[in-house]
Amino acid sequence: MDAFFVLFSGYLVFFMQCGFCMLCAGSVRGKNAKNVILKNLLDTCFGALGWYVMGYGLAFGETANEFLGESSFALRDVPHRVYSNWMFQYAFAATATTIVSGAVAERTKFEAYLVYAFFLTSWVYPVVAHWIWAHTGWLTAFKVFSADLFNGTGVIDFAGCGVVHMVGGLSGLAGAWMVGPRLGRFDADGKPREIPGHSASLALLGVFILWFGWYGFNPGSALAIVGASDVAALCAVNTTLAASAGSISALLLSMIISYYVSGNIVWDVIGAGNGALAGLVSITASCSVVQPWAALIIGFIGGFVYVASSNFVLHVLKVDDPLDAIAVHAFCGMWGLVAAGSFADDALLRSSYPALLDDSNQPVSRNYGWVMGGDGKLLVSAVTGIVAILGWVLFHMVPFFAGLKLVGLLRVLPEQEHEGLDISHHGGSAYPKEMVRSGSWGSAHGGEAYIK
Amino acid sequence: MDAFFVLFSGYLVFFMQCGFCMLCAGSVRGKNAKNVILKNLLDTCFGALGWYVMGYGLAFGETANEFLGESSFALRDVPHRVYSNWMFQYAFAATATTIVSGAVAERTKFEAYLVYAFFLTSWVYPVVAHWIWAHTGWLTAFKVFSADLFNGTGVIDFAGCGVVHMVGGLSGLAGAWMVGPRLGRFDADGKPREIPGHSASLALLGVFILWFGWYGFNPGSALAIVGASDVAALCAVNTTLAASAGSISALLLSMIISYYVSGNIVWDVIGAGNGALAGLVSITASCSVVQPWAALIIGFIGGFVYVASSNFVLHVLKVDDPLDAIAVHAFCGMWGLVAAGSFADDALLRSSYPALLDDSNQPVSRNYGWVMGGDGKLLVSAVTGIVAILGWVLFHMVPFFAGLKLVGLLRVLPEQEHEGLDISHHGGSAYPKEMVRSGSWGSAHGGEAYIK
Amino acid sequence: MDAFFVLFSGYLVFFMQCGFCMLCAGSVRGKNAKNVILKNLLDTCFGALGWYVMGYGLAFGETANEFLGESSFALRDVPHRVYSNWMFQYAFAATATTIVSGAVAERTKFEAYLVYAFFLTSWVYPVVAHWIWAHTGWLTAFKVFSADLFNGTGVIDFAGCGVVHMVGGLSGLAGAWMVGPRLGRFDADGKPREIPGHSASLALLGVFILWFGWYGFNPGSALAIVGASDVAALCAVNTTLAASAGSISALLLSMIISYYVSGNIVWDVIGAGNGALAGLVSITASCSVVQPWAALIIGFIGGFVYVASSNFVLHVLKVDDPLDAIAVHAFCGMWGLVAAGSFADDALLRSSYPALLDDSNQPVSRNYGWVMGGDGKLLVSAVTGIVAILGWVLFHMVPFFAGLKLVGLLRVLPEQEHEGLDISHHGGSAYPKEMVRSGSWGSAHGGEAYIK
Repeated sequence: MDAFFVLFSGYLVFFMQCGFCMLCAGSVRGKNAKNVILKNLLDTCFGALGWYVMGYGLAFGETANEFLGESSFALRDVPHRVYSNWMFQYAFAATATTIVSGAVAERTKFEAYLVYAFFLTSWVYPVVAHWIWAHTGWLTAFKVFSADLFNGTGVIDFAGCGVVHMVGGLSGLAGAWMVGPRLGRFDADGKPREIPGHSASLALLGVFILWFGWYGFNPGSALAIVGASDVAALCAVNTTLAASAGSISALLLSMIISYYVSGNIVWDVIGAGNGALAGLVSITASCSVVQPWAALIIGFIGGFVYVASSNFVLHVLKVDDPLDAIAVHAFCGMWGLVAAGSFADDALLRSSYPALLDDSNQPVSRNYGWVMGGDGKLLVSAVTGIVAILGWVLFHMVPFFAGLKLVGLLRVLPEQEHEGLDISHHGGSAYPKEMVRSGSWGSAHGGEAYIK
Repeated sequence: MDAFFVLFSGYLVFFMQCGFCMLCAGSVRGKNAKNVILKNLLDTCFGALGWYVMGYGLAFGETANEFLGESSFALRDVPHRVYSNWMFQYAFAATATTIVSGAVAERTKFEAYLVYAFFLTSWVYPVVAHWIWAHTGWLTAFKVFSADLFNGTGVIDFAGCGVVHMVGGLSGLAGAWMVGPRLGRFDADGKPREIPGHSASLALLGVFILWFGWYGFNPGSALAIVGASDVAALCAVNTTLAASAGSISALLLSMIISYYVSGNIVWDVIGAGNGALAGLVSITASCSVVQPWAALIIGFIGGFVYVASSNFVLHVLKVDDPLDAIAVHAFCGMWGLVAAGSFADDALLRSSYPALLDDSNQPVSRNYGWVMGGDGKLLVSAVTGIVAILGWVLFHMVPFFAGLKLVGLLRVLPEQEHEGLDISHHGGSAYPKEMVRSGSWGSAHGGEAYIK
Repeated sequence: MDAFFVLFSGYLVFFMQCGFCMLCAGSVRGKNAKNVILKNLLDTCFGALGWYVMGYGLAFGETANEFLGESSFALRDVPHRVYSNWMFQYAFAATATTIVSGAVAERTKFEAYLVYAFFLTSWVYPVVAHWIWAHTGWLTAFKVFSADLFNGTGVIDFAGCGVVHMVGGLSGLAGAWMVGPRLGRFDADGKPREIPGHSASLALLGVFILWFGWYGFNPGSALAIVGASDVAALCAVNTTLAASAGSISALLLSMIISYYVSGNIVWDVIGAGNGALAGLVSITASCSVVQPWAALIIGFIGGFVYVASSNFVLHVLKVDDPLDAIAVHAFCGMWGLVAAGSFADDALLRSSYPALLDDSNQPVSRNYGWVMGGDGKLLVSAVTGIVAILGWVLFHMVPFFAGLKLVGLLRVLPEQEHEGLDISHHGGSAYPKEMVRSGSWGSAHGGEAYIK
């Protein structure tokens, strides 16, 4: 029966591909809709190949060391009862991969993106997954080594704040940084200009589908790992509350900012949608180990983390991320790991992480969240995990995208970008011609004129 | 295992938020798309808060009287095995809430809508849910009191014709009545003018998602309550047949009307979609207790009820409901309760309402539907339930919206409405500017010109 | 529990109606969006009636001969535990039916389409379903007759390459052939002209929803038939890999063709989406009986089959299929049956087709795929099945559509087609008027002007 539920949860997570696709489609200009949609479709496909050939084996192969798995490549000698887990984990790998499509949207070459999708699912992602989710991984909290780095703890990342969202979000940061901002995103003085997407309806359709799929992501992890319906139900409740709180706090903060900046209060629908996603990312690590009231707090702070880091990426780093994927996934992913290390409840932790008990079935120590009276070891583990993932991902992805840039494979020509990728690469627009305009820096939302 | 199925059914019901959002988005003018989408997102979020803080405890708290529950607020002392039920029931509360977003669309202030969403999920809805679904509720048929009002019966409302759809639809009636019609909806002579939505594609996407989600709504209730797969399967079959019949009959009737009114036969796609929803609402109370042939009849009549009441609301009450939510939810909800009281089958009733047996395991009386040869007590119960819900909801919601109106918090300024809420409140249109027009009474479907 | 999973899988298959609807909507011109959406909604509804009244009984009635079932009409005397199967099988029948909506889109009369939907689900489809899936069917491999046609085998069509996709696709071929091409689809010299749809976003939304729903279609069949989670998981893995491979190979081949034809490489997003569907169709017959590496090959070839047969239908048969439904469903359906007869693995075959063992629990013979070292009997069975389905469907559907044409019920008037069906039949466009243009041969993608 567990297999059944893992499958259905995996289907929901797979459906998040649809959500990301619609979110991306709606958030780019109409002239690039086909392009970003095809990227979302093909990362699903190339991701499946990468996960089949290499990824699953590296992450979850039976023969394994602390760093990576060494068997089960191409599903060789994998017993059929494990296939449901392959499917579930594939959907997670594909989620990490697709996060990047938004961050580098509207100016990246197709060839570069496909190589990236295969590389991430076949090497970068599975190694991190092994560290944290495989029983032999050096960061895992599912099995505790007597004399390990963390004094009997490990990284609490139940459904993948670090494994999925940090990996995807940081890869997006590397990509968006290397590929550079879209034409016209910054004016001559380096001041950013708004480039609104062409359909808020499609974008929010994506948000709702993602939220729906997250019920596979978070509670599904409970079924895959612990097989406990109580834990799954707790995850569902926490997921709901954190998403709600994140949406509300992000909207609130962005309203306050808009009031101070422009004197007008703007009810920002894209911001509220991203806030819900920020809440969802933030609770992903800790959904099985925190009380509902803590989920509300984690989600609420997650909304702030999103708004703040979105502004940090744009105004300080000067990185152009059309989807705010870096803020939502990398930064809220980090916050989620910190939150898990801070709010983890003693009793709940024992249910989903039974290895955190010693032989006499007692907790090894007060190794739960420091906010809950614990001793801070979990937080140390979380920070260690964050640093390790930061290092691993940036170490791979910055050189990767830099190399593609060097050989001229990363970015389309300026005239193609100006005209729009759909016409230059995809045989015509996604919509009737008169509904789509070319131009350098965006559509005409907010009263601004096209530059043509 | 039941917990697992309740969770998955709850996810499907949650996904109905996406369906309502798309249905609303497509059914309003392009200039207000962001506004109605954000309302749909935020009622999901504020609904979660209201349900967490107050709603669940009032509806299903362990300590309870006939009128309301008195414990389990903020999930305090709620055992984890009940969390799946919290999630499932939250999705129902959010459904009731979001119904109103359509009825008051395109002219209602955001602040008013958020206060409403919290108020409904934290007070108005949970009390009705308690009456009918909690074992101590005064209208329940799940537990029969020896000397109760209904001679050994109760209100048959398996998945919420009264609890969800009447509550939401009547709140929509109160809101749409108080906020008044959109500018230009009625001409100088009080004759209604069509204001078509901006995307039939999005609207019907919403209808299909809602139909899909209804398989969580109706059969899911079987799992939550009876834990019986046979009952769930019957619900799924009846749901399918009623939706199909409702779509066909609504289309048929609207074609006949269009022929008599204008001489042209119009195949109305929005009408057919609403007809499917009408069929779905109509079978919601009785899905577990009627034979499939009866489901066909109930859905078929439901399509008529929708078309008739839509015209009644518009032409007689002069209430402007952009989504026809009042007709679909309030009126078909009432019909659904009457239908359950009329067509309930003896044997099926015993399966999902075992309390309707006396101590010797015999039916207390011929307390099944009068159409099936019963004695009419169920119908009396149903009518009592309808009157009670009508009174409770209108008693709260009419003063609520009237109060907001009095203090000027209910309706946006006419010039904002004319320009469109997306530009005035949300920082720009949902789509590139040239695709959206402002104006008083609608878009240019059917050859009509904009009034500027 | 099996009943529960069959239900949930059935819901996913039902959701494919939404996917087909969006795929169709996005792939037609804006002036016909409402029309094709309503057709998709109403085939769901009329399909339910046809399946209820006649279809289920013909396909799966308890009293049955080799050719058809003879009881269980209108669910009469059907025990409730079988209702979940009714629901699951209904969703399959509706899938077969809706395939045609795309092939005959933009020029077919509504009346004709509704009669077709009822006819297919009440007669043509259920008989084929009986042949292959009922235990008494003459082509079945679920029960092997001692002295049957196939020397102890039968047609391996696990989830419906023949039953669903060939039946739907061939009906589409009959319809599209009889109704003739859209105005302007071929120029005066018979050379085809592109008529792009109005929204690639909606079309790909449909593709993603279909892929998601396919996880109900393929693994769900395992639950319905074998009740084995291992088999379901294998189906899910194979489904994923085949879809991915199909998308990649179709894109690759179409890029090569576009380069040779026009000198430009076009990354065709619709083609890649249809390629994913082609991969999904191709693996449908064999998902439970082939190894993952074989699924990759089957899907990869499926992508080629789609591109080749799409060109064959258009350039050789001169049949206008706006959705490429004939290529995707009929041709890849045939390839899927051949693939199942070729790649079926001995051990896997025994798990999902236990009847293929003789009394001593040994395989009757080397009756597995010839590629895997088998003796070719399965391939003979597959070819027999293909021929039988071809004959049955074309024998019914060609005269059916020809008859409708003869009495003038098949095709709308040229002036209505030119103006668009939404204005002539549905009371106005699906979108604001200025976003939709009338005209003979399409929208303005790729720089081409409207013909007014």
